[in-house]
Parts: sequence; structure tokens; C-alpha cells
Amino acid sequence: MTDERAAADPELKKFYKKMETHHLAPLWEIMGRLAPVKPTPRARPHLWRWKDMLPLIEESGERALLGDGDRRVLGLINPGMDEGKWAATETLWAAYQYILPGEKAPPHRHSAAAIRFIIEGSGAYTTIEGDRCILDKGDFVVTPPWVWHDHGNDSDAPIIWMDGLDIPLVRDLDASFFELLGDRALPPEKPLGDSEGRYASGHLRPAWEEPDLSGSPLFVYKWARTEEALRRLAAVDASPFDDVVMEFTNPATGGPVLATISCRVQLIRSGVRTLAHRHTGGAVYLAVEGSGTSVIEGMRFDWERGDMFVVPPWAWHEHAGAGGEGILFSIHDSPVMQSLSLYMEEAYGEGDGHQEMTGIFA
Amino acid sequence: MTDERAAADPELKKFYKKMETHHLAPLWEIMGRLAPVKPTPRARPHLWRWKDMLPLIEESGERALLGDGDRRVLGLINPGMDEGKWAATETLWAAYQYILPGEKAPPHRHSAAAIRFIIEGSGAYTTIEGDRCILDKGDFVVTPPWVWHDHGNDSDAPIIWMDGLDIPLVRDLDASFFELLGDRALPPEKPLGDSEGRYASGHLRPAWEEPDLSGSPLFVYKWARTEEALRRLAAVDASPFDDVVMEFTNPATGGPVLATISCRVQLIRSGVRTLAHRHTGGAVYLAVEGSGTSVIEGMRFDWERGDMFVVPPWAWHEHAGAGGEGILFSIHDSPVMQSLSLYMEEAYGEGDGHQEMTGIFA
Amino acid sequence: MTDERAAADPELKKFYKKMETHHLAPLWEIMGRLAPVKPTPRARPHLWRWKDMLPLIEESGERALLGDGDRRVLGLINPGMDEGKWAATETLWAAYQYILPGEKAPPHRHSAAAIRFIIEGSGAYTTIEGDRCILDKGDFVVTPPWVWHDHGNDSDAPIIWMDGLDIPLVRDLDASFFELLGDRALPPEKPLGDSEGRYASGHLRPAWEEPDLSGSPLFVYKWARTEEALRRLAAVDASPFDDVVMEFTNPATGGPVLATISCRVQLIRSGVRTLAHRHTGGAVYLAVEGSGTSVIEGMRFDWERGDMFVVPPWAWHEHAGAGGEGILFSIHDSPVMQSLSLYMEEAYGEGDGHQEMTGIFA
Amino acid sequence: MTDERAAADPELKKFYKKMETHHLAPLWEIMGRLAPVKPTPRARPHLWRWKDMLPLIEESGERALLGDGDRRVLGLINPGMDEGKWAATETLWAAYQYILPGEKAPPHRHSAAAIRFIIEGSGAYTTIEGDRCILDKGDFVVTPPWVWHDHGNDSDAPIIWMDGLDIPLVRDLDASFFELLGDRALPPEKPLGDSEGRYASGHLRPAWEEPDLSGSPLFVYKWARTEEALRRLAAVDASPFDDVVMEFTNPATGGPVLATISCRVQLIRSGVRTLAHRHTGGAVYLAVEGSGTSVIEGMRFDWERGDMFVVPPWAWHEHAGAGGEGILFSIHDSPVMQSLSLYMEEAYGEGDGHQEMTGIFA
Repeated sequence: MTDERAAADPELKKFYKKMETHHLAPLWEIMGRLAPVKPTPRARPHLWRWKDMLPLIEESGERALLGDGDRRVLGLINPGMDEGKWAATETLWAAYQYILPGEKAPPHRHSAAAIRFIIEGSGAYTTIEGDRCILDKGDFVVTPPWVWHDHGNDSDAPIIWMDGLDIPLVRDLDASFFELLGDRALPPEKPLGDSEGRYASGHLRPAWEEPDLSGSPLFVYKWARTEEALRRLAAVDASPFDDVVMEFTNPATGGPVLATISCRVQLIRSGVRTLAHRHTGGAVYLAVEGSGTSVIEGMRFDWERGDMFVVPPWAWHEHAGAGGEGILFSIHDSPVMQSLSLYMEEAYGEGDGHQEMTGIFA
Repeated sequence: MTDERAAADPELKKFYKKMETHHLAPLWEIMGRLAPVKPTPRARPHLWRWKDMLPLIEESGERALLGDGDRRVLGLINPGMDEGKWAATETLWAAYQYILPGEKAPPHRHSAAAIRFIIEGSGAYTTIEGDRCILDKGDFVVTPPWVWHDHGNDSDAPIIWMDGLDIPLVRDLDASFFELLGDRALPPEKPLGDSEGRYASGHLRPAWEEPDLSGSPLFVYKWARTEEALRRLAAVDASPFDDVVMEFTNPATGGPVLATISCRVQLIRSGVRTLAHRHTGGAVYLAVEGSGTSVIEGMRFDWERGDMFVVPPWAWHEHAGAGGEGILFSIHDSPVMQSLSLYMEEAYGEGDGHQEMTGIFA
Repeated sequence: MTDERAAADPELKKFYKKMETHHLAPLWEIMGRLAPVKPTPRARPHLWRWKDMLPLIEESGERALLGDGDRRVLGLINPGMDEGKWAATETLWAAYQYILPGEKAPPHRHSAAAIRFIIEGSGAYTTIEGDRCILDKGDFVVTPPWVWHDHGNDSDAPIIWMDGLDIPLVRDLDASFFELLGDRALPPEKPLGDSEGRYASGHLRPAWEEPDLSGSPLFVYKWARTEEALRRLAAVDASPFDDVVMEFTNPATGGPVLATISCRVQLIRSGVRTLAHRHTGGAVYLAVEGSGTSVIEGMRFDWERGDMFVVPPWAWHEHAGAGGEGILFSIHDSPVMQSLSLYMEEAYGEGDGHQEMTGIFA
Repeated sequence: MTDERAAADPELKKFYKKMETHHLAPLWEIMGRLAPVKPTPRARPHLWRWKDMLPLIEESGERALLGDGDRRVLGLINPGMDEGKWAATETLWAAYQYILPGEKAPPHRHSAAAIRFIIEGSGAYTTIEGDRCILDKGDFVVTPPWVWHDHGNDSDAPIIWMDGLDIPLVRDLDASFFELLGDRALPPEKPLGDSEGRYASGHLRPAWEEPDLSGSPLFVYKWARTEEALRRLAAVDASPFDDVVMEFTNPATGGPVLATISCRVQLIRSGVRTLAHRHTGGAVYLAVEGSGTSVIEGMRFDWERGDMFVVPPWAWHEHAGAGGEGILFSIHDSPVMQSLSLYMEEAYGEGDGHQEMTGIFA
């Protein structure tokens, strides 16, 4: 604790020293840093470019020295984060994962919740509680906390997917558990497409079932349905801040797919320029198709297919369709904010609702 | 109140007379009738045959003398119900509605919740809160309570649909309200397919919307999706009592489409014979495709496309696929039972789980 | 079905006859009666006077011929109800129960939910799931559905209490179950005051317990706390329609004590005259202390300690303190209306918010 | 990132360097630290002794140099926490606050949720949304997030209370907001005891009100009721792990008083020795009365009135009554664990359910 007053006053200094010895801190010296008047996130807006990523991803195919259970995962480390805080935002881990033909991860489970989104390739699989889900490009997969799962690549070509997890949150909350299956038995195998067979229609459910997972009982959301939903919504309405934006839902509750992560897909139409706003909770975006532009805290980010970028908590942001349309997938910790009564939101009030541009991310 | 003891004892008779004068009843004389040891529904199992219905439906096209707001609706009157209790079960109204080309019902709203299921024809419409929904064969439509709606037939051929409402319940609960629009303005018109554009995918929702209807914000459930869902579920699982049975869900909650009515669709596969069970809550079934057999309280009912039949509360029932498969749509008051802590269920315990057959409904 | 048009038109008459044979009804002939434009309750406002009741209650002590499990219960029969519909309102049963010293009811359970409120005497008991609750004047007791219970009078003097149940609703919904214990074993006995020991404080709960009853886990609400709560609320606020009115809550949920019945206690202060309003859902009131006046559908009812009266659904009602204050206890089916999306409410809009008085109930 | 393999392999080292340049980290090198197999909390068990605290608290009365809005608050800094992470556990801030006669804190609000518990003195007050609550020894006060409040000491003697807030959590989640009232108007003043008048009974609520705070609408929980509840529960039941332990509840929901903090009070009876268990989520305890012993991760902590101590997440802990009984008040982040599906719990399985003692905290 630095304190000029204490330096100038030997008695005060002695008093502070005594407090420190007794593991106490004087609130009046640290108030502003302890409880800031508005969020001061360490996470910074940042963009990871696919053209830079792909060579590194491919190099990991040769160089990564994997032990048991390890996988070729290149995690986004926010430039604002400390050494040791490996994270894209304060609460979210996001990464590119690379799976070579024939590779498989051994069965495991963890208290962190996970999603993946297939960027390249077809024929990957994730087996969740005995349900083997086949994954193709654009598919989005949910792994609820603490369920046994494995994944691998049965195809002839490499697969690249985006991983999204709440690992930084779970670790900070001292609630991280991880287990390899070891000698235990896996959950019994289910018919192929079991979870989809039960819940994929979205608005019909097996009448006899009460799902009890801490997450969606539907594990895979196929791209064709996702894109169809976006197009249908585009025909009737859009958000002034996010254009055509949809949240993936847990069909058993209508809420987010995980207690800690909301997943969204978003069409930024050609020519559209949204208004700026900000809210508590951070996000990581993946450009799924096309290209577009986002302005975050005054900095312009031009994104293309395969890029990922971060919008930190309480950062002003707006989107625009450039030459053509673009589709973004994103993960958000907004359910955490909602559950803990910490969600706040604000529209950009100055001028015409757009930020002043102060730079271009290069 | 009939009471033999009172008849034999003049003092008791006098006492009972005084009570009656003061609008009191002695519980000890009526206990068994007031609170029976198990449900004694007035509703009886009954089948309405399409081959009998169609001529009457068509005759209504000529004979019905309709006033303002009237429609050609032929309501199922349970043979066990009193005169004046127009209902299929104690809580449910079900009917065949016939709409000639060009006919339309004027805008109205009611506190009763409604669904319809298209039996014959294409190109009918229902407009709900400004959202004009086009209805084809097999489509299922939800009208939440107290929303403005109208409907009509813009096609060249007659339409026949099934109506399902909770009118008997709402009337018995003294909560029936009905209004014609009159001079008021209708809700503003929305783009065609508005509700479907927002919610039809089932597992994606407009990220900015919190629906506040007393029922599903998705108004139309198209047959193609319904049938696809049934087929997919059939590939992975089924209920021992109902074979491949799905509940239509409110995408905003994952629960039933209405607070008072659960809607289901059910595939009875060829050769399958389900086990018998019973539960509180009654139901009306419509045979949508094919044929099959249901045994209700020991009576066998053979059903074919277009037939409707009633399973009363606490009645043993089981289903079987006859020569080919059959698809049933049904409405249930089970959400009422669940909400009021009155749901009870029992599997048939004797023999092999099947009822002894005591007759065939002719 | 009466229909003048059919009488005048032989073909139409024949058509209607055919429909009747096939258990069908033409909606266009019955619409107004089936789905009225506003509630048309059969229940009428009515008052049962303590001075008339007490002699009859006491006479029941001599004359009632009780079989096994019978009790001296004098049920309020609404003058608007049909023979055979023994009820105070469409959904509620209310009664005076009289228990002589030493009498006990054998253990039983029913799917109907019950409350009682002690009008006279002390030292009665109800044993619910092994928890023997001692009941004194003013105490209010909840019996959730389908739990084993018995009750009796261990004191030297007769006890009179008010019974309130949802029997008419449960019977109409075909969900009535009733069992005497017979040879089965009772739930194990618990320490005296078990439920109160856990939940009586209202805002502290045993930290390890998740109650799972279909009703409040607190069975007894003692009068001293009830009165204290009324007085404290009176010091800070009141309702314009009901003066100082409180709802008893389930401490595990903050909601009503039963899924079907809301219980309230209400202080009408001397000199206060409330505004009139109406809402769906009916109620039975018991005057607990003092006296007062209620105007229901234009009819004035003067009530005194021990009187009970009915406010039917959608009936205008307002209250006034006469010479002194009065305290009312009441049971309402409002949770049914809320759960089923049927709650509607309206303030009296004409004049000064008070009804025109059209008569005095004598 | 330290990596021996990279040090030995120049190509790998180059690859890792490139990743770092692009703000990427190889998961296979950090997996164990990123997502540990079980929680590795930085927070350590620790005890702050009243006999050490009181002189420092009193010295703060002389020495603290307070600016506008500052208060004499001595925060517990967990010895396991980094410099700059001022916190008792990863999520909780706890402190002794000292208010001299006549002192007052200016009106403010913050997104952090707060409680206080009065250790010494009477006649303090907290005004929350216009409701001035008078606070005496043993009283417990809730301040929901983002409501205007102030507090002060109107008595003639100093007041000492315990502060508990979720500041570390809220700051880490980048959701900290803080405002002084400045020139804005305060919420209108309410009658003295407004919140208690409405909700203090715990099981009666104003029938017309739907509270909408992100926390309990009852702001003060008086000691007399708290102690009475403990004694009544002690007469009927107790937890094997925590003896007589109760959670303060939000009377509007039956759940915890805040979305992020559960508050408990706990009687450890003389002679009782509880079993050990552990769970996710951390806690800070205040000894309110008497004395007792807690064993945390094998270390014995003897506590007396006024002491505070920390039980970190996933730490084994058990309690014992020493010579006499002791009462503990405690704050827990368990609602966070529950809301985010991260709650896990384990009973100590070895031996007789008690930890081996490895030391005594001196």
C-alpha cells in the first residue's frame, strides 16, 4: 500500500505497520482502487487474425509435445492480462483447437462449462454422456459442467474449432475440478444422435423427460438450422445495437445454453451501421462468414472469416457491414451478470449514437 | 340432501331443516360425495368418427345461421356431461370448425386459451396481435389468452380444423371474458411470419426480446417440423405408455404452450402395444394420420384419420399400432394439474400391464 | 338446447337432432352461454351470522351421527349454488367445525388442500406428518395436499374452528383422492413444535433443508405474531382497497401458503372507508375480532366476530370500519387465477370510487 | 511461461516466441495451472482476534484521515492474498467499521452488495431508499446492490460493526460502480421502520406488494428474533456438520438475502463436536457470543466474542463447543456457486469423520 500521508507522519506509519502485521488494511486509503466508480477492466479490445493464426495452428501440428490428455489448443491471451492470468477476458477462455486425423482426446470431465464452434473441417465428434455427436463446419456444441466427454477426428483432414470455456471464472472462484476417466466405466453408449433426436426440433420435447443437466440437454446445434433462423429473423426484425442477433437457447428452459455462458450468432448486413452501447460482461467473437467492421472503445477492427476478437466489459462497441455481409458467433458471460444482479447497460448518448473513431487496429 | 337417518328421526330432520334454512350442510352426510376417495369423472371415453362428422360438418356449411362473430363450429359434447355443460371433458372444449372460402371471423379476444390444428385444406390464416399466420394441413396454432385475433379462409376450398380451448375450465372458474373489437383499433400489422421469424427455430431467440405473453410467443408450429421431430425421436427412444410422444413447447420457457393446455403429438408405430397407465387430467385426441387402437377403461376404440376421442381423467388407457402406424395430436389439461399440485399418475399393475378388454366401441 | 330458429325450421331441427345424436353441439347457438363476455358466477354474496351459527354448531354436538372419520362440520352452502354443488364459492369449501373434549379424527389424507383458523377454544391439535401442532384461538394452520394428518381436542372445553378447503375445485377437476390410514404406519413422530422450530421465525431457515411439500413447511401461524405483523404494517402503509391487508406466506418461497389457496388477514381500522374494486377469484371471510361493514355488489353487510361471508368472483367490494376496528381472516382462490393466467382486476371507476348502496343484508 | 522443453529445443522456443508475439498460449504447457484438478485457493484459514483488533479499531478513531465519504473501516486482508487483492476470500470483503458519536457517511450507492452486523453499541442507523433503520447490538442489516443509502451514529458512544461485501467478486467481474449522491435528490423519506413494518414478521407480507429489489426487501433482522429462532431450532434439530445453523432469508423469495451472499447464524452448543466437510465457496465468520473451536484444514482455531475467521473454499472444517456455547454469524458466497452450477460438497470420509489435528493457530 502506497500512502504519502503515512510517509510524512511517523505515528500514522507505525499505525499502518501494525495494521499490516495484523493483516488489516485501512479502507480509506484504498477505496477508489477497491471499488472503482466504474469498471476498469484489464482486458483490452484485441483482434486475432486468421491469416496469422493458421500458420501457427498448423505449426502446432508438428511441434506440440502432447502428454496424456493434452490437445493442440492455442489460447487467446488478452494483452491486458497479467502473466499467469491466461484468459481472453476476465472470465472467458477462448482458443483455436487443431485436431489431426485419427487424434482423440481421452474421456474426461471438468467443472468448467465448454462450448466449441467448428471453423474448418467435417467429421469431428464429441461424445457427451454416451451420446456421440458428429460435428461439421458451423456446428456449435455445448458441454455442460462435470459431464464425461471425449472428442476426436475420424475424418481424413484436420479439424479446427473454436473452444470457449469459463475456466478463468471457475478458477478465480476456486471451483475448478478436473478428472480423467482412468479406470472408471464410461456412461453407457446411446444411439447416434440421441440428444438431437430428443431436442433438436427446439419446440417439441420428449413428453416423459425432465432434463437435469446444468446446461442444455441439446448438445449440438447444426449450422443449417442456425443460418435458417438468422435469415428468418432478418426478414422481420433486428436490434439497433447488434443488427440480426440471436441467442442460442436451452430448449428445456428457453434460457442460455449454460449457466455461465450465453452464445450468440449475429448477422451484420451489408450497409448496416449499428448504434453503440456498452454493458457489463465481456465477450469473444469469431467471424464465421464474410467480413465486417466493429468499433470498440473508438478503435476500428476490420474482421474476416476465422478472426476472433474481444469486446471487454463496459466497452463501447458498434458494428457495421462493410462490402458484404458478415456473420459473427460469440460467447458472453452475461448470464453471470444476470444471475448475480450485476447486469448494467447503457446506450451511447452523444452525437448520433456513434463513437468518435480514434484509430484503426493494425 | 337425502338422508335416511333424518327421515327416521324427527328431531334430526328438524335440525337438518334449520341448517338448510341457514344455508349450511352437514359434512358427515355428504363427505363421500363431496370428496370422493378417487376421481369420479362425469366425462366418459367416447369416439367421434370422421365418417359421421364430415357430412354434418358439410351440412353446417348450408344450415348454420351465423350472427356477427359466429362460426361454423361443431363442439364435442361428452355423453357423460349434463345438459348445459357443453364440454368434451370437465375442462376442455374440442370441436370441428368449418370455414368456407372467403369467410372470416371478426377480430375478438377472450380469456380462454385456444389452439387449433388444421385437419383439411390449406391457406387459412389466423392473425394474432397483428401477426398473420398462414395455416396448412397439419399446422398447429396457439392463441394465448386475451390477445386480439381473427381468422379466415383465403383459399378456394373449405378448411376444417380442430379447435381446442379451456372454455369449460375458465367458465367454471368464473373467469370468462369475451370481447369483439368493435370500434377499437387492431394492434399494428406485423411483417408476415413475424412470430415464426423470431421463434420458429426453437433453439435460437432474438437476443433482445423478453416475451411476456401468457402463452407461447411462437404462434404456429408447422407440420413438416413436427413430423421431422417425431421421426427423429422415434430413432432414439420412446415412452412405454405412449410410444413416440412429444410435447409442443413454449420456446421462451421450455414448458407447455399454454398455462392451461399441454399439446402433444404422438406416433404409434405399427406393431407396438404400449402399457396401460392413468393420471389425473383429461385429454382429447385427434387422429392426424393413419390408424390405430386405444383401449380406455377396458373398451377398445379403433381410430382413423379425422376421428377424435376422449380419455377422461384417471381412466386407464393404452395404445397399439394396428396394421400401420398412426399419428395422434392431443390436448391435455395436465398443466393445470401440475400448477395446482394435483398431478397423480399410476401404472397398471395387474398381469402384464395391459387392461382386460371388456368391449369394443361401435 | 333451446333454439327458436330450429323450432321454426324443420330441416334445421333435423340437422340439430342429428348433431345431438352424434354428441355434437352447434357453437353458434350456445356461444354466449358457453363463453360469457364477463364472469357470471353462481355464487352470491352472503353472510352467515355467528349468532345463528353458534346454536346450530352446539346442536350438532348432540345430534350429529358420526361414522368412522366423520366430524361435526357445518359447511357453508352458497345460496346461488345448485343442489349437489356443496360449496361457498365455485372453488372453495368453508365450514364451522366443532370438536368436543376428547374427540379426535382418525389419521387420513386427501388431495384437497386445507387450512383451519381457530375461532373458539384452546388446546386443539393437528398432527401433520408426525408433527403435533397445538392450536389456540387465532392460530392458523395449513395442511398441504396428500399429507397424513389427524386432529383432536385434548382440552376440557369444545373447540370451534373455521375449515377452508379447495374441495369443490379438486372435485370439479376430477382429482379428488381420500384415504383413511387403516393398517398403515403413521409417519414417525417428531419433536413437539417441529415445523415451528424450523420455520416460525419467517426469515431464518434451517440452512441444510430444502422443503418439498406442496404447501408451506410451516404448519402453524400463531395469532400473536399475526396480530403484531398487522399492527406494524398499519404503522407504515395500507391498501386503498383493503386497508391493512397481509398475505400469509410460505417461508420457503415467499408465495402463498398453498398452490390453490391464498390466506389473508386484514385490519379494517375505525373510520376507514376503502375504495371498491373487483377481481377474478372468489373469497370467504371470517370476522376474527371487532366488527365492520363490507359493501358487495351494492349490498351492505355488517359483520361481527364469528360471522363468515362470501365475496364472489368479479364482484365489486369495499370495506369500512364502523364504530371500532375489525379484523378479517380470509381464504382466496387467487393463486389458481395467477397460475392459470386468469387473474384480472379492476378499480371501481364511477363517482368517488364507492358503489351505490342498493340494500342492506338482513 | 516457463518450459524446460522449449529451453532445450530452439525450434520449439521460436514457435513459443511467435505465439507469445501473437498473444497466444499453448494449452498443453499450462493446463494443470489453468484448470486445476481441484480448487487451489489462495485464501488461507486465518483468525483475527478481537483483543488485537479493538486497540487498532480505537486507534483508527484518532488517526484515520478521512476524506469525503471515507469511513473508519479496517478490512481483513487474507494472508494468502497478493498485494493489491484486498480481500478476506477471493470473493468477499469483511471488515471492522468504527463510527464515532455524531459521525455520518454521506449518501451513496454501489453495485456491490453489502451487509453489516452490529458488534458493539446501539443507536446506529442505516437509511436505505428512504427507510431509516435503527441498529442495535446483534442486528443484521442488508443493503441490496445499487440502492441509495447512508449511515451514521446518533448515539453517545462509538459503534463497531462488521461489514461484509462482495467487492472482490464485483471488481473481478468488472462490474464495480460507485456513486456519491452529489446534487441529486435522495429517495423520499419513509416512515421509521418501513421495511420492518412490511416484512419483519417473515411469514406475512403486504398483500398488494411485489418487491423488486436485487436483495431482501427486509433491511434489518433484529437480534432478539434471530436468537429466538436459533433456540427454537435447537430444540428440534441440528446439522451434523454445523450444529444449529440457520440461513437468513429474503422473505419475498425464501432464498438468500442477496444474490451473491448468504448470511448465516449458528449456535455451537457446549459439548457438541460436528463432523468435518468441505464445499466450494468461502466464508468469513464473526463470533457473536461465547466461545468455541473450529478446525480448518487440520489447524485448530479457538475463537471468542468479536473474533473473525476465514474458511477458504474447499477447506475441511468442523466445529466444537468448548467450555460453553458459542454463536457465530457468517457470510458465504454460496449463492454464487449455486447460481453458476459450481456448488460441490464432500463429507470427510476418513476415520470417524474428524480431521487429524496438525497445529493450533496462535
